[in-house]
Amino acid sequence: MPEPSPAVIDLLALLAYGELQAFDQMAGDARLAPDLRRRAMLSEMAAAEMVNYRRLEQRLIGLGAEPEAVMRPFTEALTDYHDQTEPKDWYEALTKAYVGDGIADDFYREVAGFLDEQDQGLVLEVLHDSRYSEFACEEIRSAITADPKLANRLSMWARRLVGEGLSQAQRVAAEHPALAMLLLSDVAEESDIAGLFKRLTAAHTARMATVGLNN
Amino acid sequence: MPEPSPAVIDLLALLAYGELQAFDQMAGDARLAPDLRRRAMLSEMAAAEMVNYRRLEQRLIGLGAEPEAVMRPFTEALTDYHDQTEPKDWYEALTKAYVGDGIADDFYREVAGFLDEQDQGLVLEVLHDSRYSEFACEEIRSAITADPKLANRLSMWARRLVGEGLSQAQRVAAEHPALAMLLLSDVAEESDIAGLFKRLTAAHTARMATVGLNN
Repeated sequence: MPEPSPAVIDLLALLAYGELQAFDQMAGDARLAPDLRRRAMLSEMAAAEMVNYRRLEQRLIGLGAEPEAVMRPFTEALTDYHDQTEPKDWYEALTKAYVGDGIADDFYREVAGFLDEQDQGLVLEVLHDSRYSEFACEEIRSAITADPKLANRLSMWARRLVGEGLSQAQRVAAEHPALAMLLLSDVAEESDIAGLFKRLTAAHTARMATVGLNN
Repeated sequence: MPEPSPAVIDLLALLAYGELQAFDQMAGDARLAPDLRRRAMLSEMAAAEMVNYRRLEQRLIGLGAEPEAVMRPFTEALTDYHDQTEPKDWYEALTKAYVGDGIADDFYREVAGFLDEQDQGLVLEVLHDSRYSEFACEEIRSAITADPKLANRLSMWARRLVGEGLSQAQRVAAEHPALAMLLLSDVAEESDIAGLFKRLTAAHTARMATVGLNN
């Protein structure tokens, strides 16, 4: 077996710790749910992250990495992101899951194209189940229909999420130049970096519009 | 299909809400973990509760019950149990999972014998995976070996867990006489109630001894 690229291990470690942290965040957010049915739904979304976490952890072990050691460099940026974007109510929590998972999934889908077949398959498989984003989408949309003022507040909230996410992503890139270089140089070969950001932004804008939010 | 017994629906609803509440508790307790590996392990234990929750919820729907409505009568007793037994550190959290899951599983295993085949199978399948109790067992045992004074504190903690658990169980029984009667009368026919409690106590004492705790 060829020596795995450190950047691939970094990428899988980032993804793995992201799942663990998302689990923690969503499990806590489930307490904001207005009823048991919705609480169960968000708890189940959280639990699904752990199934994915375990698969990524197994793959890291298979590549000869020690999961804890390779995840540790990413804990601070992801913890800071979640600490800076603590939802104050159910709709902020759902918007965070909807917006954040959407961008993260689009990003990993782009990145997956540069991995070997096995890791590509794994990354595509741990993307979020679409029925969860459909649930979040439906909840946000009907809440905005019932209370149109909510759209302003949640639009601002979504902008804050994206801003904080970008600033932590820049930090990760600065702290992991090899990972950043590999991702960006692969992207640069195939298409161009501006194009990647354009695609991510367009998809995000479309998702916002779908639920009645402004970018 | 014969009309399902209200007591069977109560039992499945109690079990379902127990899973949802245990998920919430363990997901929060995972923050007490001393490292990422252990945090992931407890998060995974929590996530497993949601898989079981979903199966019980589906069965309740299949029996024509509205899950939220049938779970609601049990929320207070289970929430109170968890509020009264909030772990202060990693070892209290693990002892709670180890002791609580152990007694709960023994109890449901006894009760399963009085259900029809389908529900019996379901109840036996949603018992906790033994590798989680092995993990908790190993953690507690090695912590006590390293610091024998811990045994006293955790033994007292376990007694408090059992005391609080029994008091909430009595409350559930008092508030759901039909459920209590059904369980106890079925037990009474087959063996005797004193025998049931004797078996549960003996198994609990054995589990405590396994990790080096006194009953």
